[in-house]
Amino acid sequence: MENLNKIIELSYALDTFYFLMSGALVMWMAAGFAMLEAGLVRAKNTTEILTKNVALFAIACVMYMLVGYNIMYPAEAVNSVWPGISFLLGEDNTVEDVLSSDGETYYSSLSDFFFQVVFVATAMSIVSGAVAERMKLWAFLFFAVAMTGFIYPIQGFWKWGGGFLDELGFLDFAGSGVVHLCGATAAFAGVLLLGARKGKYGANGEVHPIPGCNMPLATLGTFILWLGWFGFNGGSELKISDVGEANAVAMVFVNTNAAAAGGVVAALITSQFLFGKADLSMVLNGALAGLVAITAEPLTPTPLVSTLIGAVGGVIVVFAIVFMDKVKIDDPVGAISVHGVVGMWGLIAVCFSNPDAKFSAQLIGVVSIFAFVFIASLAVWYLLNAVMGIRVSEEDEYHGVDFSECGMEAYPEFTDSSKG
Amino acid sequence: MENLNKIIELSYALDTFYFLMSGALVMWMAAGFAMLEAGLVRAKNTTEILTKNVALFAIACVMYMLVGYNIMYPAEAVNSVWPGISFLLGEDNTVEDVLSSDGETYYSSLSDFFFQVVFVATAMSIVSGAVAERMKLWAFLFFAVAMTGFIYPIQGFWKWGGGFLDELGFLDFAGSGVVHLCGATAAFAGVLLLGARKGKYGANGEVHPIPGCNMPLATLGTFILWLGWFGFNGGSELKISDVGEANAVAMVFVNTNAAAAGGVVAALITSQFLFGKADLSMVLNGALAGLVAITAEPLTPTPLVSTLIGAVGGVIVVFAIVFMDKVKIDDPVGAISVHGVVGMWGLIAVCFSNPDAKFSAQLIGVVSIFAFVFIASLAVWYLLNAVMGIRVSEEDEYHGVDFSECGMEAYPEFTDSSKG
Amino acid sequence: MENLNKIIELSYALDTFYFLMSGALVMWMAAGFAMLEAGLVRAKNTTEILTKNVALFAIACVMYMLVGYNIMYPAEAVNSVWPGISFLLGEDNTVEDVLSSDGETYYSSLSDFFFQVVFVATAMSIVSGAVAERMKLWAFLFFAVAMTGFIYPIQGFWKWGGGFLDELGFLDFAGSGVVHLCGATAAFAGVLLLGARKGKYGANGEVHPIPGCNMPLATLGTFILWLGWFGFNGGSELKISDVGEANAVAMVFVNTNAAAAGGVVAALITSQFLFGKADLSMVLNGALAGLVAITAEPLTPTPLVSTLIGAVGGVIVVFAIVFMDKVKIDDPVGAISVHGVVGMWGLIAVCFSNPDAKFSAQLIGVVSIFAFVFIASLAVWYLLNAVMGIRVSEEDEYHGVDFSECGMEAYPEFTDSSKG
Repeated sequence: MENLNKIIELSYALDTFYFLMSGALVMWMAAGFAMLEAGLVRAKNTTEILTKNVALFAIACVMYMLVGYNIMYPAEAVNSVWPGISFLLGEDNTVEDVLSSDGETYYSSLSDFFFQVVFVATAMSIVSGAVAERMKLWAFLFFAVAMTGFIYPIQGFWKWGGGFLDELGFLDFAGSGVVHLCGATAAFAGVLLLGARKGKYGANGEVHPIPGCNMPLATLGTFILWLGWFGFNGGSELKISDVGEANAVAMVFVNTNAAAAGGVVAALITSQFLFGKADLSMVLNGALAGLVAITAEPLTPTPLVSTLIGAVGGVIVVFAIVFMDKVKIDDPVGAISVHGVVGMWGLIAVCFSNPDAKFSAQLIGVVSIFAFVFIASLAVWYLLNAVMGIRVSEEDEYHGVDFSECGMEAYPEFTDSSKG
Repeated sequence: MENLNKIIELSYALDTFYFLMSGALVMWMAAGFAMLEAGLVRAKNTTEILTKNVALFAIACVMYMLVGYNIMYPAEAVNSVWPGISFLLGEDNTVEDVLSSDGETYYSSLSDFFFQVVFVATAMSIVSGAVAERMKLWAFLFFAVAMTGFIYPIQGFWKWGGGFLDELGFLDFAGSGVVHLCGATAAFAGVLLLGARKGKYGANGEVHPIPGCNMPLATLGTFILWLGWFGFNGGSELKISDVGEANAVAMVFVNTNAAAAGGVVAALITSQFLFGKADLSMVLNGALAGLVAITAEPLTPTPLVSTLIGAVGGVIVVFAIVFMDKVKIDDPVGAISVHGVVGMWGLIAVCFSNPDAKFSAQLIGVVSIFAFVFIASLAVWYLLNAVMGIRVSEEDEYHGVDFSECGMEAYPEFTDSSKG
Repeated sequence: MENLNKIIELSYALDTFYFLMSGALVMWMAAGFAMLEAGLVRAKNTTEILTKNVALFAIACVMYMLVGYNIMYPAEAVNSVWPGISFLLGEDNTVEDVLSSDGETYYSSLSDFFFQVVFVATAMSIVSGAVAERMKLWAFLFFAVAMTGFIYPIQGFWKWGGGFLDELGFLDFAGSGVVHLCGATAAFAGVLLLGARKGKYGANGEVHPIPGCNMPLATLGTFILWLGWFGFNGGSELKISDVGEANAVAMVFVNTNAAAAGGVVAALITSQFLFGKADLSMVLNGALAGLVAITAEPLTPTPLVSTLIGAVGGVIVVFAIVFMDKVKIDDPVGAISVHGVVGMWGLIAVCFSNPDAKFSAQLIGVVSIFAFVFIASLAVWYLLNAVMGIRVSEEDEYHGVDFSECGMEAYPEFTDSSKG
C-alpha cells in the first residue's frame, strides 16, 4: 500500500514534469513567431513587430490568468455554449486528492494552467504577423486583451472545456481549430478592416512582392516553431506515465516531425514547379503548414500517412498564399493561409485516420469556430477602429511604424535611412 | 522491499533527469546573454562581445570545475564566512548510498555540479554587457577567471553552501542575490573604473543615446533568457519526485512566467508614459526585471502576486536605467539596473509572500553580497588595470573593438566601413 | 506483482520521455547548423544555404523513414557488412511485451526511431556547409536522398545495428565516427569534385579569406549545437531509469560540457598565439571540436580528462583549418576539419579513458567509415555531376546562388546589391 502510494506520487511527478517541459517548449514558440515575423517584414517595421510579439505574450499571460482560464475551464458552466466564469486560479491538488482519485488526478493543476496559458499566447501570435506593417501598436494590444481574455477562451471551452463541440464528437487533438484556425480567423477579420499595405497591389491588379528583410531570422523562427511543436502536440496527450501513454506521446512526436517534413518537401517541389525556383519563404510556410495540418490528429495516423497529411498541407499553403494575393487579402507572413486554410485541412484530415471522427462534427467545428471568432473579432476591431483608429497614418506607414510606435530603429546601422 | 528499492532508484532517476534538463535550460541562457548583448551594442563591437560571451562561459566551466565548486560546497568549511577549499569533483553516489540515505541522497551529484556550473556562467554573463564597447578582451577574460573561480563561489557559499547568510535565515531561492546582484555588482565595480564610452555623455550633462544595432537579436536573447529561467528557477526546487514537490515546481514555473509578463506590461506602460513611445529595449528589460525580481522567491507568492512583483521590477528598471545615465554610469545593456537594482528589489520582496523571511536577514544579505563582491571585484579590476590596462585605446574604441581584439567584423557586408 | 508491473511501466515511460526530450534537442541542432552556416557564408548565398538546411532535414526524415531506418536496424541482417532491408516502421511495444521482457524492452520503439532520425539529419547537415556558395541546390538535395537513405544507414549498421565494427569491439558512444566522420567524409568527397570558390585561392598560392556575413548568427548556431549536444550525447546512454544509468547520463552531460569548454579555451589561446587576435570563428569551431572529440566516449573520462580531450580537439581544429587552405580544400565553414579531423581524434581518444577500447578496432573503424563513405559519396557526386552538374555557372556564383537557386535575397535591404 505504501509502495503503491509512492508509485502514484511518482507518476504524478513524471506527468507534471512532462507537462511543464511541454509547456516550456510551447512558450518557446513565442520566440519562433517573433523571429519569423521579424524576418518577413521590412526593416522599418521590425522593432514594432518585435514589441508586439513580446507584449502580446505578456498580455496573454495576464489576461488568461485573470479571466480566460476561468472562462475556458469553469467550475460549473452555464451551458454547453456559454461557459460563464468561475474563480481565480485555485489551489493545487493535495496528496490526499491524488491518492484517492483512482488515477483521475494525475498532474499538478498549476502545470495544466502553465500548458494552457502558452497555448493562448500561440493563438494570439498568429494574429500579429497578418496585420504587420500598418496597424497601430496599441490597437493591436487592446485587441490582444479581448482575444486572450474572452474570444479564445469561449471557443476553447466549446471543445476543451467540455462544451457543445466536445459533446458533438468534434475532434481536435492539439488545436488545428481551437488555436490555429481561431488565431487565423481573428487575423482575417483584422486584415479585412485594415486593408492592404500601401503599394502592395497595383491599380491594374498586379501584385508587388514586398520581400522580408531577414531570411535567416524567418528560418530560425520556423525551426523554433518546429521544436516547440513537440511540446504543443506531444504535451496534448496530457499523460505519459504508462506504456500505452508513453507510446502515444512517442507516436505524436514522430508524426509531428513527419508532417513537418512532408510539408517542406511538398512546398519545395510545388514552388519549384510554380515559380521555377526553390522559394525559401514557401518552404518555411510548408513546414508550418505540415505542422498545423497534423495538429488536429497526430496520434492515429502512421508516420507515412502523417507525412502525406503534412505534404497536402504544404501544397495547399503555396496555392493559398497565391490566392490571397489574387483577392487582395494582404497578409505579410502568410499566417491566414498557414494557420487558417491549412488548419481547416487538418480538421478535415482527422477523418482519414481516426475511426471515431465524424465528418459532420468536424465541419460543424470549423464553421462554429470560424463564425464566432470572425464575428467577435470583427466587432472588437470595429470598435477599436471607431474609438482610436487601428491603422497608422500614410506618413507613418511610409516611414515605418518603428518610428511612430516605438521611436527606434531595429537596424540603425544596416539600412539606408541611417546613412541618409 | 525490492519494489521499494526500485521506486527509490526511479525517483532518483527522475530527479536527476529534471536537474539535467533544468541545467540544460540554464546553459541556454548563455546564448540569451550573447544575443541580448550583441543586439544592444554597435556593429563595430559585436564580434568582440560574442567572443567574450562564448569564452566566459568556457572559462566559467573550467574554473568552477577546478576551483569554484570546491570552494562553494566544501567537504568541510573553515568557518561560516571562509569556506576553504576541499577536493576535485568526486565520485557519484552508489546505489547503496542512495538506498541507505533515507531519501537524503536523491539525485546524481554530477547533475548537481552541472546545474551549479551553468549558474556561475550566468553570473559572469551579466558582467560582459555592462563593460561592452570599450574594455580589452583579455582583461575581461582574466577577470572571468577570478570571478568564476573565487569571488562568486565565496559569496555563494555564504548562502547555498551553508555559510553565515544561510544560518541567518537569508532567503534567496534561485539567486536574485547570489547570482544576479553578484554579477551586477562585479559589473558596477568594473564600469566605475572603466568610465563611460566616448561620446556617451556631453560636456553639458546631455546624454547621447547609442542605439543597439540589431533589435531582433536583443529580442531573441530576451526570449532565450525567459525560457532558460524556467530551468533557473524551476530547477532550484531541487526535487520533483512526489506530489508536493511536483506542485512546487509547477508553481515556480507559473510564477516565473507571471512575473516576466508583469515586468513586460509594466515597463511598456511606463515607457509609453515617460517617453510617449513603446520603447522595445525597455520592454525587454522589463521582462528580464520581472524574472530577476521573482528569482529570490518564486514559490510562495500566488501567480497574481508574482505578476505584481514582476511589474514593480518592470517599473523600477525603467527608472533605474534613466537614473544611471543621469549619474553617468554607462551600462550599454542596462545590466546593472536589471540584475543589480531589481535583484535587490527581489530580495526584499521575499518578505511580502514568505512568512519565514526576515527583513533584517534580507538586508544583511544584500549588503554582504554587495560589499564583498564590490570590494573584491574592484581589487581585481584595479590590479588588471595596473598590470595590463583594462580599457582599449581611443583609436581602437573609435574603430571598434572588433578590429583591435578579434581582427574581424561581425557584419562585413552590412555596415558602412565595408563599403567605405 | 501489480506494483512491480506499475514500476516497470513507469520506468518505461521515464526512459521514453528522456529519449524524446533528447531527440528534440538533437532536432534543434538542425537550427544550429542552419544558423552557423548562414552566418559564415556571404550574404548573397544565405537564402540558398538556409533552404538547403531546412530541406535536407525534411529529406532525411522522409528517406530514413522509408528506407534508412530499415537498413540500419534490419529485422535480420544479410551479414555483418551488408544489412539488407526489412520492413517499414513497425508497431510499438505492447504492455505484455514490456512486462515479459525482463527489462530488455524499456522504451518506446517509436521514440527510438525519433532519436535515430534526427541523427541522420545531423550527419547530412555537416555536408551542407562544406559545399556552400557554389553547389547547385538540387544536386545537393539529390545527394541528401542517397546519403540519408543509404550511405549513412549502411555504415551506421556496421556499429549501431550490430554489424562487423560492433563485433570487432569498435567503440563510438554517440557517433564521432558514425555521424561526424561520416558527414565530413561525404562533404570531403563533394568538395574534391566541386573545387574551390572562385577567388578563394590566388595563382601564387595566396589564400584570400572570405569572411562570413553575420557572426551573431554563427555564434547562435554554435550555442544551439552546444545545447543540442546534451541530447546527442546524453540521449545515447539510451536509459536513465535507475541510479547507475542516471549517474551515467549526468556524467555524459558534465563531460560533454567540459569538452566544449576545453575546446573553446584551447582554440582561443591557439588563435591568439597564431594570429595575434582572438578569432571568433576559430573559437566557435573550437567549441564544436571539443564536442565532436568527446562524442566517441563521453562516459568514461573524468571531467578534467574530458576538458583536455576537448582542448586537444580545439588545438587540432585551428591547425586543420589552416592546413585545408594550404592544400586548397575550400570548406567555407570548416566542417571537414571540425567533424572529420577532430572526429578521428575523438575515436582515437577513446583509448585514453575506456579500458575496453582497442586501438586497432578504433583504427579499423576510422578506416572503414572513411573508405566506404568516401567511395560511395564520390560515386554519387560523380553521377550527379554527369547527369545534371553539381556546380553553378560562374555567373551565378558571382551574383550569388540565392538568385539562381531560390530567386530571392536573404537581406534585401542590408547589402549593396539592393541599393545598386
